Amino acid sequence: MAATFGEKVKVTVFGQSHSEAIGCVVDGIPAGLSLDMDAIETLMNRRRPGSANSQADSRTITARRETDQSHIVSGVVEGVTCGAPICAIIENKDQRSKDYSQFKACPRPSHSDYPAFLKYGRDYHDIRGGGQFSGRMTAPLCFAGAVCMQYLAQFGVSVQAKLVRVGGETDPEKFNSVIREAASRGDSVGGVIACTVEGFPGGIGDPIYGALESRLSAVLFAVPAVKGVEFGDGFSLSDAYGSQVNDLYTMDEAGRVVTKTNHNGGILGGISTGMPITLRVAFKPTPSIAMPQTTLDLDKQCEVEQVIGGRHDPCVAVRAVPVVESAVSCVLADYMVQYKGGK
Amino acid sequence: MAATFGEKVKVTVFGQSHSEAIGCVVDGIPAGLSLDMDAIETLMNRRRPGSANSQADSRTITARRETDQSHIVSGVVEGVTCGAPICAIIENKDQRSKDYSQFKACPRPSHSDYPAFLKYGRDYHDIRGGGQFSGRMTAPLCFAGAVCMQYLAQFGVSVQAKLVRVGGETDPEKFNSVIREAASRGDSVGGVIACTVEGFPGGIGDPIYGALESRLSAVLFAVPAVKGVEFGDGFSLSDAYGSQVNDLYTMDEAGRVVTKTNHNGGILGGISTGMPITLRVAFKPTPSIAMPQTTLDLDKQCEVEQVIGGRHDPCVAVRAVPVVESAVSCVLADYMVQYKGGK
Amino acid sequence: MAATFGEKVKVTVFGQSHSEAIGCVVDGIPAGLSLDMDAIETLMNRRRPGSANSQADSRTITARRETDQSHIVSGVVEGVTCGAPICAIIENKDQRSKDYSQFKACPRPSHSDYPAFLKYGRDYHDIRGGGQFSGRMTAPLCFAGAVCMQYLAQFGVSVQAKLVRVGGETDPEKFNSVIREAASRGDSVGGVIACTVEGFPGGIGDPIYGALESRLSAVLFAVPAVKGVEFGDGFSLSDAYGSQVNDLYTMDEAGRVVTKTNHNGGILGGISTGMPITLRVAFKPTPSIAMPQTTLDLDKQCEVEQVIGGRHDPCVAVRAVPVVESAVSCVLADYMVQYKGGK
Amino acid sequence: MAATFGEKVKVTVFGQSHSEAIGCVVDGIPAGLSLDMDAIETLMNRRRPGSANSQADSRTITARRETDQSHIVSGVVEGVTCGAPICAIIENKDQRSKDYSQFKACPRPSHSDYPAFLKYGRDYHDIRGGGQFSGRMTAPLCFAGAVCMQYLAQFGVSVQAKLVRVGGETDPEKFNSVIREAASRGDSVGGVIACTVEGFPGGIGDPIYGALESRLSAVLFAVPAVKGVEFGDGFSLSDAYGSQVNDLYTMDEAGRVVTKTNHNGGILGGISTGMPITLRVAFKPTPSIAMPQTTLDLDKQCEVEQVIGGRHDPCVAVRAVPVVESAVSCVLADYMVQYKGGK
Repeated sequence: MAATFGEKVKVTVFGQSHSEAIGCVVDGIPAGLSLDMDAIETLMNRRRPGSANSQADSRTITARRETDQSHIVSGVVEGVTCGAPICAIIENKDQRSKDYSQFKACPRPSHSDYPAFLKYGRDYHDIRGGGQFSGRMTAPLCFAGAVCMQYLAQFGVSVQAKLVRVGGETDPEKFNSVIREAASRGDSVGGVIACTVEGFPGGIGDPIYGALESRLSAVLFAVPAVKGVEFGDGFSLSDAYGSQVNDLYTMDEAGRVVTKTNHNGGILGGISTGMPITLRVAFKPTPSIAMPQTTLDLDKQCEVEQVIGGRHDPCVAVRAVPVVESAVSCVLADYMVQYKGGK
Repeated sequence: MAATFGEKVKVTVFGQSHSEAIGCVVDGIPAGLSLDMDAIETLMNRRRPGSANSQADSRTITARRETDQSHIVSGVVEGVTCGAPICAIIENKDQRSKDYSQFKACPRPSHSDYPAFLKYGRDYHDIRGGGQFSGRMTAPLCFAGAVCMQYLAQFGVSVQAKLVRVGGETDPEKFNSVIREAASRGDSVGGVIACTVEGFPGGIGDPIYGALESRLSAVLFAVPAVKGVEFGDGFSLSDAYGSQVNDLYTMDEAGRVVTKTNHNGGILGGISTGMPITLRVAFKPTPSIAMPQTTLDLDKQCEVEQVIGGRHDPCVAVRAVPVVESAVSCVLADYMVQYKGGK
Repeated sequence: MAATFGEKVKVTVFGQSHSEAIGCVVDGIPAGLSLDMDAIETLMNRRRPGSANSQADSRTITARRETDQSHIVSGVVEGVTCGAPICAIIENKDQRSKDYSQFKACPRPSHSDYPAFLKYGRDYHDIRGGGQFSGRMTAPLCFAGAVCMQYLAQFGVSVQAKLVRVGGETDPEKFNSVIREAASRGDSVGGVIACTVEGFPGGIGDPIYGALESRLSAVLFAVPAVKGVEFGDGFSLSDAYGSQVNDLYTMDEAGRVVTKTNHNGGILGGISTGMPITLRVAFKPTPSIAMPQTTLDLDKQCEVEQVIGGRHDPCVAVRAVPVVESAVSCVLADYMVQYKGGK
Repeated sequence: MAATFGEKVKVTVFGQSHSEAIGCVVDGIPAGLSLDMDAIETLMNRRRPGSANSQADSRTITARRETDQSHIVSGVVEGVTCGAPICAIIENKDQRSKDYSQFKACPRPSHSDYPAFLKYGRDYHDIRGGGQFSGRMTAPLCFAGAVCMQYLAQFGVSVQAKLVRVGGETDPEKFNSVIREAASRGDSVGGVIACTVEGFPGGIGDPIYGALESRLSAVLFAVPAVKGVEFGDGFSLSDAYGSQVNDLYTMDEAGRVVTKTNHNGGILGGISTGMPITLRVAFKPTPSIAMPQTTLDLDKQCEVEQVIGGRHDPCVAVRAVPVVESAVSCVLADYMVQYKGGK
């Protein structure tokens, strides 16, 4: 269950932060889609540490160098999908496994270390670099998302996310200073990413357990550090009155049925209305901070002071922007393939 | 996909607001569980309109009378589960279908009417009482939840939700007055429900796409009017610094590994830590309000003023408390059955 | 997992032989299908004991009277599907539970009794009438199949099965005498049912694990007493040479690509070729026979002689003809809904 | 759906015969399993063309050289599973793509060519070497099977298959001569493989749609060239009387409940009885034969004579023995993981 999601478009990811390679299998993309490899790489580069990031300067992200060159080994012939599962491999390099051995005894606060010990056993869990829980595992998701985005683009569907809040600050001009300030203290900071989908047809989705919100949130919550997901006005709707936030229907110049507002984020009853789909995703601060913290030594059974070395993003939300776009694209491509039908 | 969720404990719901009956099939509950029918009815009554509700007086909920008497037709022999799927039927009564015919031409703002027309066709969608999108469809979910809650209770797991916010008000003493005030204006109001799970073992869940948050949110977002879900401190984590919200490990008197705080809501890396699982769910205001609203007449293709009659909850969140408990219980029972294994 | 199958058309069955009712939920049938209730009843009557059966006279089937009147409680409005899950209930009557108590100690040979004891516990398994393992549970499958058959018929797809072999006899004229002869000795006899699907479009299915044969066989093997499934010439292909059984392509008068023979039963690589889909299903003899047999008394831990009373079909294959048609129709309707796509 | 199967142990395969690589992802194998890489390679070698095969001499299998060296890139640390998905890559070499271009116009009889054209489009389907339909795609299944077999072995479960029938011949001594004789004529021949599982506990499986036969047959029918699957005495049960084939219970010296015979192949009601699980799989003759055949030229729309060059197995069943063992092992490991439960 862990590694695969989707119904007709099924995405399976594999790998650990320090395994020989990571990657994914994207099954169900119709044959005949010409893949723009540059566009795939561009999206993956936005996630890659050490890259020039659309919304962050180099000082706000980890100094770690990851080469996220994805290599397609199946499912594509001369740049065009053939209907077979698309497998992409990303080799792992620049690993510094020595950094991690100590955490077998002393789990890092707010990391997956401790629950992973309970689940897999301390002797067996691959803790190096966070293992299969590493943010690095979002790289294959970005590959899958980039492919799905290109599938959706054929039908005029676009998916765009951006960082809208960092440590409570909502002025994008100030995001970098907030992040640098946190980093300078050896601290980390959280953020919120907003995503908007344009051009997704109305009437797609399922009531109850097949709701667009259900399937979108399921994949978004699989992204490391995500602790909240809301659609449309989300939590602020719970503070409002119906008369303030009901979206009234009208007809636009083109004769399309539209709503005057979009407080519901383009989804009603789990089904798309034809208005833009809007959602927001809350990321917690990176649990790895340079400041000393106390944790428990599981062997000595006493509290110890711990300093986490290594190179970490002070704000994971910065690089998660293309990850959110990818998660959303994979889910919507799945709905679209089912909507389009065909053999 | 719409009607069924779960892996080993599979819940399938059926029915529309005005179909002859609604109900559910709960498959995968181990044989040998003695069901406390009174406890099931008690939980369902908390959801039922016109009932004395734990947190709301009779004036704050719809005057509509629903008889939510569930009737088990399979899977239980002399009060004990036999391992066969448990099917419970709830008859629909007190239906006033005449109230709904008009909305075929004029979709109600922020209702499922319009997207349902796109999906099923205006001629075919059963719009009466909201059809399969009705809040009434949470009754069978409560039956399933009550059964799962009893399964979980055997292992010391308890699931409890409560209304923590109504229209921005956080003092429970004032919830009823906020709701009555909205109702008196013919308006509705939103709310937030918080849920806490005690006693769920650590180490359960799956990384990535099998994350506890993923599967919990998927079912919670299937509940009508839910627009946001967060775990632990949720969205407020995005405003915080790592040094403020990392949960530090220590050992309690009983020698159990615990965290000094629980900002992460008992889940790290998608896996339970053994600390209480905490989550919050945002409900939008009831879209049906007595105040006149403009909408589009799909036949005349012009805006019209609409007044929605009938009997509606001014705040759906009030009765959704046991629904949230039920959704959470169904998902956690599924994980627990898999954890326990057995034939 | 036990009670539900299908991807977009999901069928969930519930009930035990002697529970208050049995039934099924059919989810995913598109809105707008006018159901012919008489046709549904006709198909179900072909399965019903004590009915005039297309291929067997009244003496060859159990004297037990089952009233298989299915009652639709949801998903259908004025005879037309509305897109909501269709739930049909069949009440259980004419139950003689007293007949079954003895088998708790002494499992019937070749019945599900013993493995069900291991799985559910002797105290909890509902053994009455075979419980959830009863052939009676094929009644709801027939309801689902009848609905799916009507969906398929819209596209010119027909599904027809017939009994082609009984106790080694292949002359239909002699089936009844073979069965009566076995019955007269208090014995039972096996049979083979052949099914042919006409009009199913080519190009539908999936390679490898989504193969038509995979999904068809999975549901067929869920029918009680089925022990073998083959497609096209099936097992006899293993005795043949390629030059004898390769299906050569040509073009018919209408310019359609066809094969001169159909040894592969209309499926290659898991995908339909456009030729008729043909399959055969092997049913074992009814395990319940009137002749005395030895079995083990689990309490006394010794062998005992057992005589199984009650009313049983001497040849379950006789009434399984519509069940095979139903199983095939459910699976093919699922593929067809996915092929047709749409909202 | 095509590329993935399983519930808790999920196997996803990828690749085409002539893609850069093929492989699989095995998700759900518990952490802590020490993998015997030699045993994995040994099983894969039994499938590999050009290898010394347990039951066939080199003249009876294709001269094609495949290097099936599997390379694990994730999920295993120092030879031990860590709980992360196990991905194995097998590079494709020795490809002769030029051989296949002609078949775009003239589909090979009884091959997947034509239905694949309908499904993926002639322009897009990767026909080289059979693409994703190639028997070569059973190599990753063998890797997955070998891993699952080692998981099962911990619990004393063994899975063994053998060739029991070739072209109607049942004397193993004569299999090679039958195959060589067919090959000498440029023909191919079918065969039957029997598989026996020892040590699988009783009480595992699910009634109805989760039946052992359902899930086993679904994966077995996904193996190229399989056209029939039967359990226990299978089709011959349909020729028998109940009194002849009912399996009578008794107790063995060790006090275990056993049956005196095993006509039902260790499965009743879809659940294991504790007796050996036995099944038989029918393979059709290799569709590729050297003898000239007529087929349709889809462009010229006329029949043409076709001679298929290249190197093919005269009897695919020979190399399918480890494939059948692997398919069975994957399915049973999935049931076993669920039975064992745990975090």
